[in-house]
Amino acid sequence: MDGSLPDTPGRAGGRSTGDDVTTINTKPAPDTSTAPPRVLRQHLMELVEEQLSEFFRVERDRRSRAHSRAADLVGSVADLVAAGGKRIRPAFCISGFLAAGGDPDDHRVLPAASALELLHASALIHDDIMDAATRRRGVPTVHEQHSATHRMLGWRGEDRRYGEGVAVLAGDLALVYADQFMAAAPPLVDALWAELRAELIVGQFVEVHVAAAADFPIDPELARWIAVAKSGRYTIHRPLEVGAAIAGRPDLADAFEAYGAAIGEAFQLRDDLMDAFGDGQVTGKPHGLDIEQHRMTLLLGLAMKRDVGIGDLVSSNATRSGRLRRRLQDTGVRVDVEEHIDRLVEEGCRAIAKAPLAAGWREELTEMAHLVAYRDR
Amino acid sequence: MDGSLPDTPGRAGGRSTGDDVTTINTKPAPDTSTAPPRVLRQHLMELVEEQLSEFFRVERDRRSRAHSRAADLVGSVADLVAAGGKRIRPAFCISGFLAAGGDPDDHRVLPAASALELLHASALIHDDIMDAATRRRGVPTVHEQHSATHRMLGWRGEDRRYGEGVAVLAGDLALVYADQFMAAAPPLVDALWAELRAELIVGQFVEVHVAAAADFPIDPELARWIAVAKSGRYTIHRPLEVGAAIAGRPDLADAFEAYGAAIGEAFQLRDDLMDAFGDGQVTGKPHGLDIEQHRMTLLLGLAMKRDVGIGDLVSSNATRSGRLRRRLQDTGVRVDVEEHIDRLVEEGCRAIAKAPLAAGWREELTEMAHLVAYRDR
Repeated sequence: MDGSLPDTPGRAGGRSTGDDVTTINTKPAPDTSTAPPRVLRQHLMELVEEQLSEFFRVERDRRSRAHSRAADLVGSVADLVAAGGKRIRPAFCISGFLAAGGDPDDHRVLPAASALELLHASALIHDDIMDAATRRRGVPTVHEQHSATHRMLGWRGEDRRYGEGVAVLAGDLALVYADQFMAAAPPLVDALWAELRAELIVGQFVEVHVAAAADFPIDPELARWIAVAKSGRYTIHRPLEVGAAIAGRPDLADAFEAYGAAIGEAFQLRDDLMDAFGDGQVTGKPHGLDIEQHRMTLLLGLAMKRDVGIGDLVSSNATRSGRLRRRLQDTGVRVDVEEHIDRLVEEGCRAIAKAPLAAGWREELTEMAHLVAYRDR
Repeated sequence: MDGSLPDTPGRAGGRSTGDDVTTINTKPAPDTSTAPPRVLRQHLMELVEEQLSEFFRVERDRRSRAHSRAADLVGSVADLVAAGGKRIRPAFCISGFLAAGGDPDDHRVLPAASALELLHASALIHDDIMDAATRRRGVPTVHEQHSATHRMLGWRGEDRRYGEGVAVLAGDLALVYADQFMAAAPPLVDALWAELRAELIVGQFVEVHVAAAADFPIDPELARWIAVAKSGRYTIHRPLEVGAAIAGRPDLADAFEAYGAAIGEAFQLRDDLMDAFGDGQVTGKPHGLDIEQHRMTLLLGLAMKRDVGIGDLVSSNATRSGRLRRRLQDTGVRVDVEEHIDRLVEEGCRAIAKAPLAAGWREELTEMAHLVAYRDR
């Protein structure tokens, strides 16, 4: 029953607290004048992991003191973050910062990177409710965990409502934590941060709406817009832009937007391919969900352009994921999409070919584009 | 398909945009040297209303340009805010600012007041999902509206999942908007803002958990903690504190905490009484929900202290709201609670009796305490 305020990460340049999470640093830093880009990024990424786990340790403690069960909600967020994930958004944020010439010893980029990962956690928790998804990162989804506890212990009311209600609150808490971290970044990212969150949420709404209302004539442009709004921007383009802004280099926004748009689309197409053809054992989540839920994915957008029969299969109320999957394979759409991904990777890398980046970063971002576009989970 | 950034309210003292929402002012301001407290507050409250409606107008427009349906989600938030509500949190925020001697012509308090109302909208939208509530502010709840559209138009999938999914996103969007406004307030409110949101969300979790798990022995202290965490703090104490902080008067924090704790408890007890005995036609929402959902309210906490039989009725899995209501009435608990509210109002007003407030504000805050504690909706 403690009413005191938390040790919030202090806004850079403003008030700072004794245990400011932005300055935690237990490992020796590499020599920043000679270390290659990847080593520098990995060093900062380790600091992000430490920052996140230290934050959750303090926050669990603080909330437990208030009420014995209160830390359970914090734990649901902390466990999802600790369960892994690819950390793509922090990696691009830090890369944007370093590629823009940001000083590796200037740790103001760390809370921004953590904020992006926490925003992603929030989106996953809430998305999984909407999808009725049962697994994520190899473990049960947050709502599923809490529904299962409810069933197992024979609690009152409906297990689904309880589990989903708790997951709504867990996602809200992750969103608040994200924001608490971003408040420690320099004020010039405020507008970017507001926009990237709103476009993510609005993009998800349009996707859910279109899937339910089935008001899509064959419209690859709409699929593309959803993919860009919902995923492309907030995964690559905006994190790079946030990093560059913190480094004081808004002039890189255009090059990073062009790179981010192309590589973000490749990222999303790979996601769609993994959903359609991937192995749930490797990805840690069930596959075929997009098709079963009539999601207007980029993959289906491209497929419909080439084969009108796909549109009928997608629109059909019956779940026909098996048939659809075979057809995507048989009519060569899958191969086509792989070629399209190749073109996007080339296009993205071209976009930064002439940008004034710090030494070695053109090559590193080219490598990252390949990792993202050709990943298997 | 517009990728430009929004016209975010600029952080005070930082970047500002041409149509900065913090400076909208179409009505003539009262003479700030002579106007009484209430007139000043009402003037600033009108500016908050204008700020909110202008924000939603611009935001709907912006999102419609991106996708024809995207504005529907913005509309769900805007409609709830426009549907009324008591604006208690903005009123206390502005009062805290003015009572602390803040300059009525210094409009930095306006985005903070708007942020508090948008946070409240977010909490209501998500709360209504958890409660499966059907009406709010006299109209169907957000999830109910979208579920109804789904049913009416015969869309695909489950109407409940669709409606609740859209409401999750609408609540997320309101939370992001809240934060976007608060980012325009001075940085010194960052820590307060982080804490008030986290304590609200964690408080809601404990309430939902306790109601489902039924792991309450008769524990009025727990009921009190939930009420304070979930409602008392974010309704009165924290808004006053935010206002005082913006006015540069953190020294008022103790007096405002004591006032806010007492009046916040009175506010919540009135809420509980209205839920148990109120008229849904007046309050705009169904009554009896707390009892039906086994909520550990302050009212029941006090009742159980005096009558152990109440505990059995509350714990019972069958819904016995009629019997419980009669028992609360018959055993005199209702009268007791009214007397307790009287004492809280006295206590709250005493807490500010010696605080160094601007002229007329002790009387005004006393009047507000009565309005909050003895309201009928």
